[in-house]
Amino acid sequence: MDFVQNSWYVAGWSKEFDFDLVPRRIVDQDLVLFRQSTGHVVALEDCCPHRLLPLSKGKRIGDDIQCGYHGMTFAGNGRCVRVPGQDNRPDSAFVQTYPVEERHGIVWVWMGDPDRADLDAIFEIPQFTDPNWCTHLGEALSIRAHYLNVAENLVDPAHVSFVHPTTLGNSASENVPVHVSTAGDVITAWRWIRDSEPVGFFQNFGGFQGNVDRWHYYHLHLPSTAVIDFGSGASELHLGEEDRDQGVRIFAIHFVTPVDADHTIDYWMHVRNTAVTDESASELMDTLLRKAFQEDVTVLEAIHKSEQRPRTRKPTRIAIDKGPNTYRKRIRDLIEAERTEYLGDPVDPCFIHHD
Amino acid sequence: MDFVQNSWYVAGWSKEFDFDLVPRRIVDQDLVLFRQSTGHVVALEDCCPHRLLPLSKGKRIGDDIQCGYHGMTFAGNGRCVRVPGQDNRPDSAFVQTYPVEERHGIVWVWMGDPDRADLDAIFEIPQFTDPNWCTHLGEALSIRAHYLNVAENLVDPAHVSFVHPTTLGNSASENVPVHVSTAGDVITAWRWIRDSEPVGFFQNFGGFQGNVDRWHYYHLHLPSTAVIDFGSGASELHLGEEDRDQGVRIFAIHFVTPVDADHTIDYWMHVRNTAVTDESASELMDTLLRKAFQEDVTVLEAIHKSEQRPRTRKPTRIAIDKGPNTYRKRIRDLIEAERTEYLGDPVDPCFIHHD
Amino acid sequence: MDFVQNSWYVAGWSKEFDFDLVPRRIVDQDLVLFRQSTGHVVALEDCCPHRLLPLSKGKRIGDDIQCGYHGMTFAGNGRCVRVPGQDNRPDSAFVQTYPVEERHGIVWVWMGDPDRADLDAIFEIPQFTDPNWCTHLGEALSIRAHYLNVAENLVDPAHVSFVHPTTLGNSASENVPVHVSTAGDVITAWRWIRDSEPVGFFQNFGGFQGNVDRWHYYHLHLPSTAVIDFGSGASELHLGEEDRDQGVRIFAIHFVTPVDADHTIDYWMHVRNTAVTDESASELMDTLLRKAFQEDVTVLEAIHKSEQRPRTRKPTRIAIDKGPNTYRKRIRDLIEAERTEYLGDPVDPCFIHHD
Repeated sequence: MDFVQNSWYVAGWSKEFDFDLVPRRIVDQDLVLFRQSTGHVVALEDCCPHRLLPLSKGKRIGDDIQCGYHGMTFAGNGRCVRVPGQDNRPDSAFVQTYPVEERHGIVWVWMGDPDRADLDAIFEIPQFTDPNWCTHLGEALSIRAHYLNVAENLVDPAHVSFVHPTTLGNSASENVPVHVSTAGDVITAWRWIRDSEPVGFFQNFGGFQGNVDRWHYYHLHLPSTAVIDFGSGASELHLGEEDRDQGVRIFAIHFVTPVDADHTIDYWMHVRNTAVTDESASELMDTLLRKAFQEDVTVLEAIHKSEQRPRTRKPTRIAIDKGPNTYRKRIRDLIEAERTEYLGDPVDPCFIHHD
Repeated sequence: MDFVQNSWYVAGWSKEFDFDLVPRRIVDQDLVLFRQSTGHVVALEDCCPHRLLPLSKGKRIGDDIQCGYHGMTFAGNGRCVRVPGQDNRPDSAFVQTYPVEERHGIVWVWMGDPDRADLDAIFEIPQFTDPNWCTHLGEALSIRAHYLNVAENLVDPAHVSFVHPTTLGNSASENVPVHVSTAGDVITAWRWIRDSEPVGFFQNFGGFQGNVDRWHYYHLHLPSTAVIDFGSGASELHLGEEDRDQGVRIFAIHFVTPVDADHTIDYWMHVRNTAVTDESASELMDTLLRKAFQEDVTVLEAIHKSEQRPRTRKPTRIAIDKGPNTYRKRIRDLIEAERTEYLGDPVDPCFIHHD
Repeated sequence: MDFVQNSWYVAGWSKEFDFDLVPRRIVDQDLVLFRQSTGHVVALEDCCPHRLLPLSKGKRIGDDIQCGYHGMTFAGNGRCVRVPGQDNRPDSAFVQTYPVEERHGIVWVWMGDPDRADLDAIFEIPQFTDPNWCTHLGEALSIRAHYLNVAENLVDPAHVSFVHPTTLGNSASENVPVHVSTAGDVITAWRWIRDSEPVGFFQNFGGFQGNVDRWHYYHLHLPSTAVIDFGSGASELHLGEEDRDQGVRIFAIHFVTPVDADHTIDYWMHVRNTAVTDESASELMDTLLRKAFQEDVTVLEAIHKSEQRPRTRKPTRIAIDKGPNTYRKRIRDLIEAERTEYLGDPVDPCFIHHD
C-alpha cells in the first residue's frame, strides 16, 4: 500500500508538543517529535539505529534524545552526539529527520525528499487570521480505515443525506446533482439545495425562521486536506456563489493523515463567520461535528473490514462518484510519479539526511 | 478451506427475524436477512456493490434496503430500485439473493446454485408435528472451530464417556463397540449399553429405579445436520431397536452452520416423548444440554488451536473413527463434485441471480 | 526462527508440578508435565496423536494421562496403554517424551535428542548448597519478545546505567568500558565502577556509609542461562576480582526459556552472601529485582515490536555490543551445527522415543 511521500502532513496541534517525546506514525513511518528549547518542533525517525528501540521510549537530555537502552544520544538534526563506552561514532549512527513547520497552532511534517519541502505548499486560507472569522481547532479522530476512503468521503457531498440525515443533511438533497471541477491540486465537488428547511446544524446556528438555500462545497487539496465550505442563507436572499459570506458560512477543515494502510487520523477544525467571539458556539459546533463525524467513522470502518473480504466482482460506479474517482486517479498518478522518480535516482531516501 | 455450497443451512430461529436487518455469515459468505411485510424472510448479499458497505448497516425503506452510505436501494429480489443522483441504474447494481424457507420456527437458507434449491431436501421428521412429542427450540452455540470437527463429533458416540462423564455418558460405555452404517445421505453410528446405571441425564428424566438399557443413535445428515436419538428403558423390558418409543426417548438435533474456516454455529433443539406438556422439563433439558455441549466446545476449540500448529506426523486413526472418517470422505466427495461441476460451467455463480 | 534443541531448559519451579497436568510451550514445542506417584516429574508431548487434543486437557488416571476426547491413555514413557473401543494399539499411538531432571527446586527439561541428554550439563553452582549463602527462587517473568534479545540483555552491563538508573545502576558507570571474554560455553562481560556512590540496590542491602567499588560480572552460559554476579565493597578495601566474597555479593540468575519466536519466560532467582537467614531480605530483594526487570521488559517488548517493522538499513554496531555479538554468533553456530547434523541423520526426531 503506497502513500504520497512528498507532502506536508499534519502531525498534531501545537499544544500537543512540548518537552515530552511524542511518537507518531505517518505514512507508515515512525517519528518522534518534541519541542526544542528554541521553541521549534523537530521530528526524528523513532528508532535508534543501534538496537531499534523507539527513541520515544528514551528521554530528553536538553535538546537531544538519549536512547533508553544504551544511551546513544541524538541531536535534533539526527546526528549522534554520544555513544557511551566509546569515543568515536560510527557512520551509521544517525537518524533521519523530517522538516517541520508550525502555523496557526498546527504542526506539519514533510514526509518525502527534504530538498523538496516547500513551505509555500502548506495549506493556508486568509480566514485563519481574519478578525471577522473565528478559527477553532477541533480534535484528532482515529479511524481504522484506509486514508483514501477517509479522504474521498470529503469530496463526496452525496453521502450527507444518508450518513448524516439529522445533523449535516436531510432528505431534501437526496437527488440534487453534484458538480465536480478541478483546479490545480484542488478537486471541488459542490451543490446547492435551494429553498428547503434548514438542516439540524443550521437550526442551531442560523436562527432561521423559514426556508434556506444551503450549499456544500467540498474542496479536496491533494493529497488529503479537505475544506468543506457549507452554509445557509434565507431563501428570499437568492444568494449566488459569490454571496456566501452573506449567509452563515462555515469551513470544516480536515487534515487527513495516513497512519498506515489500516489506520488514519483526521485532524479536524472549523472556521466560521457567525458568533465569532462566542466560545460556547465553538463548543456547540464541536459537539455537533463530533457526532456527525462519528457517523462517518461507523461507515468507513465497516467498509474497511468489507474491503478485506474476497470479492468476485468489481464495484459499481455511479454518477455521484465523480469527485472520489477524480481524486483516486490523481493520487495514483502522484504515487506513480514518485515511484518512477526514485527508480531513476539511486540515492537511498533513508540516507538523504546524513551529512 | 471449502464448504458444500448446494445445501440448506439454518440461519437462525424464526423469532430472530423481524423488521430489523440481521447480518449472518454462512459458508464464508455475508448475508443480510429480514422479514418482509408479506411475512416472508429474504436473504441478500450483505454488501452494497457500490462502495461495499454491508447493507445491514443501512436501513429498511418498506420492503427494500437502503444503503447507509449513498442511499442505493435494493428490493428483496436483489434488484437495485434507486440510485440517488441519477435516473438510470447500471447493470452491475444488484446484490445476490438466496432462497429462504421457514419451517417449524427454523429459517433455512440455500447457499448454492438457486436453480437447485429443492424444498424437499429440507430436514424434516414426523415428530415435529406429532402431539405425542414435544418439540423445543434451543440455542445458537458459537464455536471457534472448523465445522467438520463440530459435525464429526455428532457421529461419534465414543466421545460421550470421556467428554460427558457426568451428563450424557458414564464409564459403563467406554469399551462398548460402535456400529456405523450409511443409507443415502445419512451416516449412522450407534451403540446400546445394556443393563447399566442410568446416566445423569436420565436420572433427571426417566424416574428409573434400577438399571437401564441405554441407546445412542447418531444420524448425521449430509452436509451437517445431526439427529442424536438417545434414550433409556428399564433393563427388564429388553427393548429392541424398534421398541425405542417405549423408553424415554429424546432427539437432540444439531443444525451445524459453517460461518467460516474458524467459526461455526450449532443451532440445537430437542424433541422428546416424555413430559410433553411440561415446559419446565424443556428448560431443565436446556440446562443439562447446555452444560454438556459446553464440554464439547472446550474440546473442539482446543483442537482447532492445536490444528493450526506445525505437525511432523500424521494423526493416528482408531476403530471408533469409522463414523467421522466416513463423514469426512463424503464431504470431500461432495465438495469435489461441486468444484468439478463449476469448472465445467462457465457461468459466474455471483451473476446467476441477475435477470 | 530456530532454537538450540540439544539443551536443558527450565520448565518451572518444583512447587509448580504436582498431581495436576501442567502445559508448557518450550522452543515452540508443546509439553505437558506432571509429577508421578514416584515423585518424578515427566514431560510428554502435549498432543494426543489421535485428534490432536492437548493431553493437558485430559485427566490423570494414576500415573497415566487419559485424553479428554476419546480416552486414549498414555503412560509416562509416552506409550499408549489403552485405546477404548479396540484391543490392539496402532504403531503411531505414542507421544514423544522429554528427559526431566529436578535440582534445587528447579525443573529442567531436555528438548533435543534424548540420547544426548547429559545430566552433567545442567547448570550448577556450589553456592546453591553452601550454608553461608542464601538461595531464593524468584518468579517467572513473561516477556513478549524473542529470547535472543532477552538473553543478550544479560551479557550486556552497558544497559544498566540507562535502563535501571535508580535501581541497579547510576550515571557513574555510563562510560566505564566493558570487558568481554569467553571460556568454553560461558561468555562473560564485566566491569568495575570504582569509588562511586552505592546504587539504589546497595543502599538497601549494603549499609554502606561512603563510596563503594561496584562490580558487574555477566556470565552467559549457552544457550540461555545467565548469572549476574554483582556487588559492592567499601572503596577503602580496594577489593580485587578474587576478593568479591568480602563485599556484599549477589548472584541474580536468569533461566531464559524460549517459548516461541514471540514469547520468552525468564525464570529468575537470587543467591546472596548477606542477611542469609533473613527471609524479609529475600522479599525485599524480590521487590527490587521485580521492579528492575520490569524496566527490561518495557525495553525488550518495544524492541520486539520494532523488529517486526520493515527496515531499510542495517543496525549500527558499537563497542559495548561485544558480549551480545559474541553470544549471537555462538548461538548461530550451535543452531547451524544441529541443522547440519540432522541433515546427515535421516531419523525423524519425532520418532526417536518410540521403542
